Amino acid sequence: MDCSGAATGMKTASHTIDAFHRGHFFLVQPRGKGHRAGMDAMMLAAAVPSSFSGRLADFGAGAGAAGLAVASRCAGASVVLVERSAEMADFAAQTLALDQNAHLRNRVSLLTADVTLTGKARVAAGLADASFDFVVMNPPFNTARDRATPDALKGEAHVMEDGMFERWIRSAAAVVRPRGRLALIARPGSLTAILAALGGRFGGAEIVPIQPRADEPAIRIILRAVRGSRAGLSLMPPLILHDASGDPFSPHADAINNGRASLFGD
Amino acid sequence: MDCSGAATGMKTASHTIDAFHRGHFFLVQPRGKGHRAGMDAMMLAAAVPSSFSGRLADFGAGAGAAGLAVASRCAGASVVLVERSAEMADFAAQTLALDQNAHLRNRVSLLTADVTLTGKARVAAGLADASFDFVVMNPPFNTARDRATPDALKGEAHVMEDGMFERWIRSAAAVVRPRGRLALIARPGSLTAILAALGGRFGGAEIVPIQPRADEPAIRIILRAVRGSRAGLSLMPPLILHDASGDPFSPHADAINNGRASLFGD
Repeated sequence: MDCSGAATGMKTASHTIDAFHRGHFFLVQPRGKGHRAGMDAMMLAAAVPSSFSGRLADFGAGAGAAGLAVASRCAGASVVLVERSAEMADFAAQTLALDQNAHLRNRVSLLTADVTLTGKARVAAGLADASFDFVVMNPPFNTARDRATPDALKGEAHVMEDGMFERWIRSAAAVVRPRGRLALIARPGSLTAILAALGGRFGGAEIVPIQPRADEPAIRIILRAVRGSRAGLSLMPPLILHDASGDPFSPHADAINNGRASLFGD
Repeated sequence: MDCSGAATGMKTASHTIDAFHRGHFFLVQPRGKGHRAGMDAMMLAAAVPSSFSGRLADFGAGAGAAGLAVASRCAGASVVLVERSAEMADFAAQTLALDQNAHLRNRVSLLTADVTLTGKARVAAGLADASFDFVVMNPPFNTARDRATPDALKGEAHVMEDGMFERWIRSAAAVVRPRGRLALIARPGSLTAILAALGGRFGGAEIVPIQPRADEPAIRIILRAVRGSRAGLSLMPPLILHDASGDPFSPHADAINNGRASLFGD
């Protein structure tokens, strides 16, 4: 997926400034390298209920796309962007400094930290136990095997290491309060690792498959789960990105992409 | 799901004789108790390609519904019905003895055995290593917690024990040849246990969610996988049972229910 449907680029030498949610917020992103945000981040943010109120952490926030999309749609959300890469965190800082984002700035902050830290090191880095109501994550999801480019910054975001979901979800379980929630976006091929990592930590998982078209396999899954729940897993109807209308996106996908709808209708 | 769309009952004192695949084969089933076959078995059988040729084991065959449905649609299939319960195996034997099933009888046999046996005990029971090209299974899928009835025979088929998928899939991995295949039907809530049990044994998993209607969560999943494959998991478009037409079943679901189509189109 690219971000052509979500953003319009204003190019300079080293970065672009891209509009999201039809201009409701903007991102400063590295130009032509690194991980550039698009529909994945918008769909992940859409897993948060519009009525959500509380503290939300965006793990692996990059330039801040998912976190800002939550803040943009959910007026009661206080968002912490958590990013390990100093270079990407700098883009997130530039994003927060944009005049166009001034209306969101008092509800969004930036924490440069590695979400895979554990115990006291994690707490010392600013990720205290049970200090959030919601965690969203868009972990790097290309495996080393299918990585297409040697670009170092892109590699940082796109290489999936062994045990990554275990480490990310372990940290999410530590920082959300009991009955707090997790949402993530991933490839369907990561489902086994994800479900194994949820075990004993999060329950009541709801999975929405994301299909390009009605007759094609899912290219992504959005999963939402509840800390400490013992409820079973649900497999929800898919989100179909492109219908037969000839428009770039189906009405539901377009609404989600532009912050007009939540993924679970809540 | 019930079998009302699939079968018409001819009742006697202790059993019924039910037509499947529009009368292409019949089942002798316990009347009003035990596990009665219906759409679940037909959908499971539909996971086998029409072009399949070779030996297929139906684990937990009951009265033989899934195995006979495979034999009915796949002319190259030789089917072994494997059932632990002597009472249900007797219904399977009566099923095979029916005149109406004479055209399938030379390709279907019955083995009374517990599929969870291991090692020499499994081999001695008739389930030799690498002796099948395909295993289909419809394991008992109600948990003890949501079991609705104390009926002993129904309980035998419907209680899910801890580790059941691990034991059933371990045996399936033992009895299929390299690159042989497994298909199963289960509730979405069993996905975590199923994917954990596949690990290191079966790969290239393809999952089809079964939804009652386009806007409702899946009530079943059909999963197919390949012994020894290292390919990733795919999440396929859902099968929608009921469309907006007012007919009992959507055309695709009706074709699958009646042996006119395979689930994966192969």
